Amino acid sequence: MKAKIHVTLKQGILDPQGKAIEHALESLGFKNAGNVRVGKYMELDVQEQDRAKAESQVKQMCETLLANTVIEEYRYELTS
Amino acid sequence: MKAKIHVTLKQGILDPQGKAIEHALESLGFKNAGNVRVGKYMELDVQEQDRAKAESQVKQMCETLLANTVIEEYRYELTS
Repeated sequence: MKAKIHVTLKQGILDPQGKAIEHALESLGFKNAGNVRVGKYMELDVQEQDRAKAESQVKQMCETLLANTVIEEYRYELTS
Repeated sequence: MKAKIHVTLKQGILDPQGKAIEHALESLGFKNAGNVRVGKYMELDVQEQDRAKAESQVKQMCETLLANTVIEEYRYELTS
């Protein structure tokens, strides 16, 4: 199965990378862009036919490595 | 309007970050995860009511700043 994972900063957590992009966009002339938030997007293959098992594995991967759950939240989709 | 932008490495471009995650997952015991690809995910607000104009602006932002189109490809969705 293929997993598509989004890891984003929790609401309220400062996003300096987003702020930097915002300023860069502004200085490039995009004055009406704002509130930029940057996250990670990952795709990976899980060699597992059973959807429930694959899901529990992806969840564990996120919890232990892919996301820092103190400041980040994650969501994932599984497609076969 | 809100734009959700995915920037990913083009197929065939080496992804060292993905490889590092793959190895980390393996050493954590996730033996059946593979082919990890890492990209960026961005959300931003565009103060523009007209969908076509917003779309052309987001496209331009991707082309000039958000994606390196030599090695990366991007896609975006607009929601109001």
